[in-house]
Order: sequence, then C-alpha cells, then structure tokens
Amino acid sequence: MSRRITLLTDFGTVDGYAAAMKGVIASIAPDAVVDDASHDVAQGDVEAAGWALSAYWARYPEGSVHVVVVDPGVGTPRRGLAIRVRGRYVVAPDNGVVTRVLLDGELEAAHELLAHEYRLPDTSRTFHGRDIFAPAAAHLASGVDISRLGPAVPDPVRLELSAPVVSDGVVVGRVVHVDRFGNLITDIDRDALPAKDATVTIEGTDVGRVRDTYGDAVAGQPLALIGSSGRLEVAVRDGDAAQRLDCGRGAVVRVQG
Amino acid sequence: MSRRITLLTDFGTVDGYAAAMKGVIASIAPDAVVDDASHDVAQGDVEAAGWALSAYWARYPEGSVHVVVVDPGVGTPRRGLAIRVRGRYVVAPDNGVVTRVLLDGELEAAHELLAHEYRLPDTSRTFHGRDIFAPAAAHLASGVDISRLGPAVPDPVRLELSAPVVSDGVVVGRVVHVDRFGNLITDIDRDALPAKDATVTIEGTDVGRVRDTYGDAVAGQPLALIGSSGRLEVAVRDGDAAQRLDCGRGAVVRVQG
Amino acid sequence: MSRRITLLTDFGTVDGYAAAMKGVIASIAPDAVVDDASHDVAQGDVEAAGWALSAYWARYPEGSVHVVVVDPGVGTPRRGLAIRVRGRYVVAPDNGVVTRVLLDGELEAAHELLAHEYRLPDTSRTFHGRDIFAPAAAHLASGVDISRLGPAVPDPVRLELSAPVVSDGVVVGRVVHVDRFGNLITDIDRDALPAKDATVTIEGTDVGRVRDTYGDAVAGQPLALIGSSGRLEVAVRDGDAAQRLDCGRGAVVRVQG
Repeated sequence: MSRRITLLTDFGTVDGYAAAMKGVIASIAPDAVVDDASHDVAQGDVEAAGWALSAYWARYPEGSVHVVVVDPGVGTPRRGLAIRVRGRYVVAPDNGVVTRVLLDGELEAAHELLAHEYRLPDTSRTFHGRDIFAPAAAHLASGVDISRLGPAVPDPVRLELSAPVVSDGVVVGRVVHVDRFGNLITDIDRDALPAKDATVTIEGTDVGRVRDTYGDAVAGQPLALIGSSGRLEVAVRDGDAAQRLDCGRGAVVRVQG
Repeated sequence: MSRRITLLTDFGTVDGYAAAMKGVIASIAPDAVVDDASHDVAQGDVEAAGWALSAYWARYPEGSVHVVVVDPGVGTPRRGLAIRVRGRYVVAPDNGVVTRVLLDGELEAAHELLAHEYRLPDTSRTFHGRDIFAPAAAHLASGVDISRLGPAVPDPVRLELSAPVVSDGVVVGRVVHVDRFGNLITDIDRDALPAKDATVTIEGTDVGRVRDTYGDAVAGQPLALIGSSGRLEVAVRDGDAAQRLDCGRGAVVRVQG
Repeated sequence: MSRRITLLTDFGTVDGYAAAMKGVIASIAPDAVVDDASHDVAQGDVEAAGWALSAYWARYPEGSVHVVVVDPGVGTPRRGLAIRVRGRYVVAPDNGVVTRVLLDGELEAAHELLAHEYRLPDTSRTFHGRDIFAPAAAHLASGVDISRLGPAVPDPVRLELSAPVVSDGVVVGRVVHVDRFGNLITDIDRDALPAKDATVTIEGTDVGRVRDTYGDAVAGQPLALIGSSGRLEVAVRDGDAAQRLDCGRGAVVRVQG
C-alpha cells in the first residue's frame, strides 16, 4: 500500500513551484501518491490554511502525510516542523497552521526539520517547500521515523483562536471562516447550542431558528444551520451569505435558546 | 491494476472540501487513484458539469468511477445515484448531470445511494460529496457491486437538451457550451451538416464556410469548424468568440448547404 | 514502480479537456501516475509555460514524462515532438516550449509524433493534447522506445532567450518571468553577479544590495535576492514587486559590483 501525501499551498500552479515539490517527492518516494489539497490559499493566510487542513487531515488514513506551505516567514528564523497526531503527519512551517489539528487529537510527536540528510543538498533561502518540507514528507511516507528529522519540539506555535462565550443561555461566537460559497462558518459547535431550535442573529440581523439544511429556507433567504464541520453556519440558499449580509471573518453571531 | 476515480465539483479547493472527499476515498480504497477533473465548475451549473463530464467519461477505461458533485439541491429530497454505462460508473446527485452520458450508451444499471453500509456513519445534511458520493465511489472502485448500493432507479433524471432542427437543407441549432477559450460549441453534430462546405451564421452574423482547423482563418477572425467533441463550433483564431460575437449558451446557429 | 506523467496546459479544467487527456493516459497506461503541473498557464503563453517547466522537469526522477500543451499553433503544420534530456521525456508541440530544458542538458533524442500506432485512431484537428500528446506520453511511460514515435528531429525549435550583458563590471539583464507573488525573476545567474554585495537597479529604481532572503528587508520594501531558481530576482517583502514597481517581463535590471 502506497502512502498518501497531500499538498496545501498558496503557490498557485502556474510557476511550477508546486510541481517542483511533486518532483522532489517522486524522486525520494516513487510509490507515494500525491493529492493536491489546494494551491490557491490566499497568499500568506495561515488561518485559512489551518481551517482547510482541519476539513480533511483526519479523513485520510493513518500514515498519511499532509504538507502545508503557507509560509510568509520563509527566510526568517521560524522553524520547520513535522508533527504526528492520531497517526497522521503534518509537515509545515511552525507558524500555527496546525493549531486546529492539535485541538483534534493528542500531539504524539513534533520535530524540527534540521537533519541535513532529509533535506535537499542545496537548501535555498526562499523555497523551503521544495527543499525542506517536500523531502521531509517523502521520507516520512517512505517509513523514516519522525524522530530522525530533527530535535523534538515541545511547543509548536498555536494561534489564539476565538471561542464562543456562554452566559444566561445566550451563546456569543464569531465567524471563523468564509467558504467559497459565501457560507459564514462560526466557532459555535453543534453541542454548544442552547436549544435545538435556538434563534440566531449575525451582526444584529435576525436569521431565524437553526434549520436542518439549505432546503429549509426560501431561495435567496439567509438561514442558520449546522454545517458539514459540525459548527453553526449562516448561509443563504442558492446565494452568498457573506455578500448578502456584508459579513466576514470575525462577525459576531448570537444564539438564544 | 488500481481503478481510477475522477472528481468533478463546484467546490473550489481552498476550503478543503474536495480534499475531504479524497481522504474518505483513500480511507476506504487505499489503492484507488484519484484524478481531479475539475473543482471549478460554475456554482450549481449542472448543465456545464454534464458537458464537461461528456468530454472525458468514456476516455477512461472500463471500471473507472466518475464522481460529480454539482448539487444545488443538497439537503432536498433529490436522490443520490450511481449508474453504469459502457462499463464505467458515474456517482452523482440525480439532477440530470448524467444526461449526456445516457445519450452515449445504454444504461446498464442505476441505483439510489441508500445503503447505510456504503455511506459514512454520520451523514451530514449539507455535504453529501464527502458523506455519500465519495464512499459510494470508493466502494465501487473496490469491487462492490453497484446493486448493493441501494434500490434500482428505473428513471434517472434527464435534462431536456436542445436539438437542431433541419428543414429545406438548413440546419438550425444552438450553442450548448462556451469553453474556456470562448469557443461556442453547438448541438450540431458533424453528421448533421448539410454539406462539407456549408456556410454558417450565428445570431445573424456570417462566419463563412465550415473550415478544417483554426489555422484556416486569419488571426482575430471568426470561423466555424468541427471541434474536438465532433460538433460544430464557432471560434475566433487566437481570440475569444464569445466576447467577439457577444454570444453565449443558447445562441442560434444556422447552417446552409 | 509506476512512471510519472505530468501535465502542463492552458486548458483550465472546467471544460473537461485536461480530464480527457488523463482518461486517454489511463486507458493506455493504467499504472502510470499523472500529476497536474498546471492547467492555468496564460492562454498561448509559450514562454511562461517554458519557464514553469524549467522549475520542475529535472526534479522528477529519470523516466518521467512531462507533457506540455500550450499550443497556439494547433492545426497549423507545426510539429509534435517528444524529446529526451537527462533521462526525462518532454512531449509537446515543437514551438520552443522546451528551450530551457535544452539549455539544462544534452539532447539525447528528439522525434516527431507521426507514428499512427501511437496516436488515437481518429485524430482531431483541434485537440492534439488528447489525440497525439497524451497517447505518446502514455506509450513512453509504458516503455515504448522514443524512436518508435516517429522520425528523428535534428533541430527542435528554440526560442531566442534574452541573456545578460557584462561590461566594465556592470551586468545588465532583463526580467524573464513574473511569478504569482509578483516576484520579478531575471536572466542573471547567481554566478554572474559581479560581487556578493553588488547593488541592483530595476528600470532605474535602486533596490539596494543583493540580500540573502525576504526577511532581510522591511515589509513593503523592494529587495534583490537570489531566488529559488538560482537567478537574481527583485521582490517586495510581504508584497507584490511587479505592481509596486510597475515592472514586468522585459524590464531592465542593472547590477553593479
């Protein structure tokens, strides 16, 4: 069985940078299968990359290796990192992009990517995706133990994520991600709802009771529902909630029982 | 030999939704190879997805599984479907996206995706791509018989497609697809041309005789030719016919012998 | 070990053209693994495609097959080509897209894609990617000798690339590629710098001494550095140099020792 490696970057594809990473992987681990997660992350948007990663990392089988190169700090002294959580690996700059992975499982191992034998011989100062992260991932997929990649890292960087506040039966949270469809996804977990039929406002606009699915609203009307990530989201049936409600990341959502 | 699974969606890639489908597939069918067809279908454009699918489904070998998730009706009672035509499978919402596949071969089997053992345990109401379609495709690629996915469907939904009208040696058809290059592809098949050197107008504009290839026109000039799908198309050499002629899907094309 | 095939095109993905190529490959070479390099090359931009190719072709292991279909001349008498350099193959229209590959190694073989048994039976006049290039690549990946694809080509088309001019310790070069981040990459090789701490101007604007990495500049400020291709580039830390300096391909860069 060949191990899977996924790639998530903000490189786009037109310059051949992502393909260079794939070539490096193919040279080191010819049997590894590489899946593109995305190369279209907004440039340098570590938070968005971390959200995307949280959507798929644990859907892959144990032993899979997820590479994330959204790395505005390339060439600064930020660390390169490989971690293992629930039997899956993430290889990424140590800039907090793994925060949501760390919330989803116990950190089994974390190592800094310093071992020269698992980097390319000539490491550039500007393209660690090709020269450091891709080789590390390929070696992990080939069975190299994570501890051989470099010294243990006791404290991977974690982003401070917003968390909903509950008082008097009212839950106040925030939009943490706007997806391609304009759905406004919040930090409010399904289990945090004060009642199954609670009512929801976003930035003061009433969007009614929590529904089951898009089909429960009239086309063009906003609605609140539990999305595919298990979190409360505000959507517009056959429409774009972010545009329609003029809201984005950070917008305040109130849920009342 | 590992079976191929292709993915065609309107998810984009940045939210990790498409990657979540790949992870589910990798978990169920570790040896299946997943090819991205596209994740950039215009949101909810079932007709465009069906056209794209018609360009590649039969190019893949028998046993391949094509997943299409362009699904404006997710969460409504529309059915989930797996069909087999000419030995290939398509897994998709039952919204007519398979219409052109059904025109290209006999329907060998069609089943509704209701069997719980071939879905993910917790099926969301908003992301059937991950929870229903991806698992069904992975099980098909692993050799599960299509009949085990659920009850037979005698009447998959078919879109009403336009068809050219012939009278007095004049063929009147319509543009059914505008491709990335701005080529205007019609519903007029090569065999329906009244003559090899017939003359063509689109929305009243004369574009001359049917040519063999782009190189037969001057740069910037419109021309008509038989495109790679075997249908008449109107193109502009080194240019964009849709913009140049201000035409789109539905534009009327007349061919005179 | 399955051989890799990469695809670089200007097809986009939404029309199913790229997927049709993958299907043809899967039918001929079921065990070949296909990596997308990009389908988003600017339409007909042979120079940009050649640059992207140069970023990854030699990163792949020997035996890999790189398909490039950026082919404004499809349907004209331009040749279809397969070449071998340093044990890797490139299959492409003979329009100069392989120029940088030919600069990177000795031409071991070059053949025109004329042998009918290695094309699809019905070759269209408008989609050689599917009907000629994809089959040729799949056959190469399956072990067919390159000489069987058609007659030898002694003189593949080469683009005239700009080259820096050195006089009196001043190197004058040009921007040859603008990448997704707006970095302005020049034709000046690391070894051509008159001094390690030479100073750089672009179109008359001083951007200071050559630095080691992005982190050596203040955010928003332009800087010159040796990029991941080993060539001098002008960048803006956390910004877009092409926009900030209003420069593009062809801009003149002067380096003084």
